[in-house]
Amino acid sequence: MAEKVNIHEALASVTEHWSQKIIGEANGQLIKVAKGVGETNWHKHDDQDELFILYKGHLTIQLRDRDVELYEGDLFVVPRGVEHCPRAENEAEFLIAGLNVTSNAAGGKPNA
Amino acid sequence: MAEKVNIHEALASVTEHWSQKIIGEANGQLIKVAKGVGETNWHKHDDQDELFILYKGHLTIQLRDRDVELYEGDLFVVPRGVEHCPRAENEAEFLIAGLNVTSNAAGGKPNA
Repeated sequence: MAEKVNIHEALASVTEHWSQKIIGEANGQLIKVAKGVGETNWHKHDDQDELFILYKGHLTIQLRDRDVELYEGDLFVVPRGVEHCPRAENEAEFLIAGLNVTSNAAGGKPNA
Repeated sequence: MAEKVNIHEALASVTEHWSQKIIGEANGQLIKVAKGVGETNWHKHDDQDELFILYKGHLTIQLRDRDVELYEGDLFVVPRGVEHCPRAENEAEFLIAGLNVTSNAAGGKPNA
């Protein structure tokens, strides 16, 4: 059985932007934490919904038809197949849940 | 597409202890918020892992062989089939994720 994890401590240990760190698993889904500043590339996940919970800062989930503004404590689900582009003017810290790690080129991770 | 939900506001709207309120869905799993004080009955879920994230207060997840003490920001997953009994000396507020609403008699909800 996995031990408990403190989400704030896990976030503090993240050193690279737009790179997800796995902190748990439940019912086949991964719970991950990440930090971001700037923006990813536009992308979508055809195989999974992507859940965001904001822990620190302000994250804009740009969709093609509107922006969703997330602040501390806000939860938002990007449905599978929907194009999105997260953007943060200053560093934002968040939790993500989904079927696998999506912080890769296909997942919109910007070039280093 | 569902709108964003603020978890703190959703928790503030919960009026009954050990009763889950659905605030989102992703990949076939429900995201729920709940408050608890006292304890549930001992129970287990053979069909699903149950994920807890503590938002306020202190929640003890009693397992048969140990207690897991959760404070703000702590995440813990009770694996399917594992007997557990959440207990809170003072009111605790938390998020739960799983395949369905488990705040029923089979889910350990205490008698009113």
